[in-house]
Amino acid sequence: MNPKSARESIAVTTKVVLPHETNTLGKLFGGALLAWMDEIAAVSSHRHCKEVAVTAAVNNVSFNNPIELGDIVTLEAKVSRAFKTSMEVIIDVSIEDRVTGIRRQCNQAIYTFVAINKEGKTMEIPELIPETDEEKRRFDSALRRRQLSLILAGKMKPSDATELKLLFER
Amino acid sequence: MNPKSARESIAVTTKVVLPHETNTLGKLFGGALLAWMDEIAAVSSHRHCKEVAVTAAVNNVSFNNPIELGDIVTLEAKVSRAFKTSMEVIIDVSIEDRVTGIRRQCNQAIYTFVAINKEGKTMEIPELIPETDEEKRRFDSALRRRQLSLILAGKMKPSDATELKLLFER
Amino acid sequence: MNPKSARESIAVTTKVVLPHETNTLGKLFGGALLAWMDEIAAVSSHRHCKEVAVTAAVNNVSFNNPIELGDIVTLEAKVSRAFKTSMEVIIDVSIEDRVTGIRRQCNQAIYTFVAINKEGKTMEIPELIPETDEEKRRFDSALRRRQLSLILAGKMKPSDATELKLLFER
Amino acid sequence: MNPKSARESIAVTTKVVLPHETNTLGKLFGGALLAWMDEIAAVSSHRHCKEVAVTAAVNNVSFNNPIELGDIVTLEAKVSRAFKTSMEVIIDVSIEDRVTGIRRQCNQAIYTFVAINKEGKTMEIPELIPETDEEKRRFDSALRRRQLSLILAGKMKPSDATELKLLFER
Amino acid sequence: MNPKSARESIAVTTKVVLPHETNTLGKLFGGALLAWMDEIAAVSSHRHCKEVAVTAAVNNVSFNNPIELGDIVTLEAKVSRAFKTSMEVIIDVSIEDRVTGIRRQCNQAIYTFVAINKEGKTMEIPELIPETDEEKRRFDSALRRRQLSLILAGKMKPSDATELKLLFER
Amino acid sequence: MNPKSARESIAVTTKVVLPHETNTLGKLFGGALLAWMDEIAAVSSHRHCKEVAVTAAVNNVSFNNPIELGDIVTLEAKVSRAFKTSMEVIIDVSIEDRVTGIRRQCNQAIYTFVAINKEGKTMEIPELIPETDEEKRRFDSALRRRQLSLILAGKMKPSDATELKLLFER
Repeated sequence: MNPKSARESIAVTTKVVLPHETNTLGKLFGGALLAWMDEIAAVSSHRHCKEVAVTAAVNNVSFNNPIELGDIVTLEAKVSRAFKTSMEVIIDVSIEDRVTGIRRQCNQAIYTFVAINKEGKTMEIPELIPETDEEKRRFDSALRRRQLSLILAGKMKPSDATELKLLFER
Repeated sequence: MNPKSARESIAVTTKVVLPHETNTLGKLFGGALLAWMDEIAAVSSHRHCKEVAVTAAVNNVSFNNPIELGDIVTLEAKVSRAFKTSMEVIIDVSIEDRVTGIRRQCNQAIYTFVAINKEGKTMEIPELIPETDEEKRRFDSALRRRQLSLILAGKMKPSDATELKLLFER
Repeated sequence: MNPKSARESIAVTTKVVLPHETNTLGKLFGGALLAWMDEIAAVSSHRHCKEVAVTAAVNNVSFNNPIELGDIVTLEAKVSRAFKTSMEVIIDVSIEDRVTGIRRQCNQAIYTFVAINKEGKTMEIPELIPETDEEKRRFDSALRRRQLSLILAGKMKPSDATELKLLFER
Repeated sequence: MNPKSARESIAVTTKVVLPHETNTLGKLFGGALLAWMDEIAAVSSHRHCKEVAVTAAVNNVSFNNPIELGDIVTLEAKVSRAFKTSMEVIIDVSIEDRVTGIRRQCNQAIYTFVAINKEGKTMEIPELIPETDEEKRRFDSALRRRQLSLILAGKMKPSDATELKLLFER
Repeated sequence: MNPKSARESIAVTTKVVLPHETNTLGKLFGGALLAWMDEIAAVSSHRHCKEVAVTAAVNNVSFNNPIELGDIVTLEAKVSRAFKTSMEVIIDVSIEDRVTGIRRQCNQAIYTFVAINKEGKTMEIPELIPETDEEKRRFDSALRRRQLSLILAGKMKPSDATELKLLFER
Repeated sequence: MNPKSARESIAVTTKVVLPHETNTLGKLFGGALLAWMDEIAAVSSHRHCKEVAVTAAVNNVSFNNPIELGDIVTLEAKVSRAFKTSMEVIIDVSIEDRVTGIRRQCNQAIYTFVAINKEGKTMEIPELIPETDEEKRRFDSALRRRQLSLILAGKMKPSDATELKLLFER
């Protein structure tokens, strides 16, 4: 399998927040945003591995800024690192100013996807080559996040999490 | 504000997976499950703080087992720890065997909610008292998870994460 | 087939009324509530008979109190009586006070379900044993309700409805 | 208020059963049909009273025949009797044969609606004049159904249900 | 195949605009109306050809008047002309006055459907006989519309569009 | 108002066809695609005029190729020409090959939007400057399409449609 650049996995979707997607405060319902993220991250994963990709985990989503009814919301998903049979996808969510059109990032999410074959077994996926500075930074931190989730799931001993330990030893 | 027991925040919902909630493989669509979790965690948070509670973060969701069309899925949400203005909610997802009715846990999720007032500002919330062994274990680990997410968000220095450091020193 | 207690069939779901579930007055849309009831009653029926259960009739639903946007609504379904191939399910709907958390019942519904096999034929189902006083009261009145609906459907002569006649002779 | 003919309240809707409206057996989901009935009965009620009409009760719905994916379903709602502040609406559901186009009735439902003003109070509604034989038959039986539901709700003594008593005395 | 009258293809649906179908201005969302039109036009097409009919084109939809939350909207679809393997369907959309009940037309749409067999190939369909004056007018102008869309799609030379040319020569 | 380039109005959305968006043949439901187009065209219009934009007309949509369950569908909307108070938006729909990732166009749609102020009145919008060859071709043909729809709506005499007449005189 040939390695792929992060750029090839970019997937974008743009939405207008409609009334049926609001919560009781008239803001975008968190559950709706989570579903949108899941769908676009699945597209991004597919573009990287060219197989059917399904959600293995949501690693982190921060809702820093409420999103209002009528806001134009853009989600950009990109694979940040491929492991043997899983890949981390980062989704950046931004809103655009109604007058200037300038977008400001309002939320970020980190999902993990796996590629599966017809029997539902996980498959090997191509390596990912980060190119820009941001892609490299996200590629590096992806390993720390992976060690963290393995530790939290009891599948790795903290003493084996070499990357993570460095954080705390410094 | 009087402290509350974890038990008082339990919220339960039971669903049948219908065709409109499936993905292209005929399993429960990840985005639908994330939305269900968000809704029941909001109920649990509200029961703890008696204010309007909104999603601040999704800390972790693991999709260990695919859920099939027609499965009966139960989500149980419970506040695991209250901080000054935020609370961690753990959602346990189980499926029941069609013949024996025995439920087995298939997924788990950790969300963070905040209580907000009419101006959209976060409010102080009551302390949470864990009672059972599991509640106590989850209460303790909630602090480590919180330090982790503060570090990952760049809001805390690893050296200040006293609880977390212990993990790596051992 | 071993008889089952009513308790074993309890199924609970809790919802927050979101904007997409409201009617033009900003209250919970009746059609949405009917669909929620149908889903949780199907779970309750399944828990009693352990077969696929489908709606045979809605016998009665009363909408006594409007339910508002943002209300936390709990539906509790329980089989009240099993006949040869059908079972009556009662769904109690309650709303909880935002401050005290005390729930008050606001609606009640009575549905009839049948268990069906793969060919779509109805199947025999286990007997139901009522235990509490309320379960016994509902078990008794279920027979009267059944006679009524048979009469209204022209499938029973009033003179044969022994239970019902007693009501009018007294 | 001038009396109205039953005919003036007719409301019709035709649907194709789409995959998102099916249950786990690939038939029309009962909850979806209940919601469709509720919506078209609200139109029929409005046409009779020219006020906002909301569901007060579902008195009876029978699901005699399963409805398949792709079936063309027609719902015809008509007010069968107006009481002082409420009206009974009967909804006839039919499916049409794919080749001959001939419709056969497959389900029937009886709902009760009330007209409400801006304060949410019930309002008086016009009298209904049945004209055809079927309209007259339904008009007459509506009173018996109303007495029945009052008795079942504990709001009328069986001995006062003059119409109903006749059924059992014969 | 016997010719059919236009009248035999009439399909009607009536809706109440609910909050989940509104746009950010509180009016009926254009996308929802387009989906309603598509569904009822599919029924009308089916009634003409008695085969599975799918959308081939939307030729024109005009949104002349905004439709408000709570409005009662009636869509009437009727086949206006059948070509060899396709048929034009016109959908008239009207709203009714809340007090007088009088309907006024607010939008009109023109769709093209084709009948397809199990292999997904288009099938021949019966001829359509217009009877009323309006049916005849629509039947005639359907040919002009068809020539127009063939020209716009680059499938016909303007010089061959005999019907259309007449418009400009006059 | 400063003129804007067509490029500034580009809006993109990518979707996976999920089961709840299919028709009875298991293909993407036409009504769902129409709603997706409407939403992304509204974003494109807004990006051009920076006001609230609502659908004025659907001028043409061709469904050349059926879209399958699980297909990854990309919609790209771009304003093709601005008139005084309305703008034409063209939406190109493409599907990507599962293995090579190469996208092929499968459908195209032409919508007209207007900008409206808080009173619901149409507003003037900036001029559009086409830059690429395709943008220029679409800009030119937009005028012909506009004259056509004015003629079809009876708002322009064929003899005044100077651009269109040229088509037929050649």
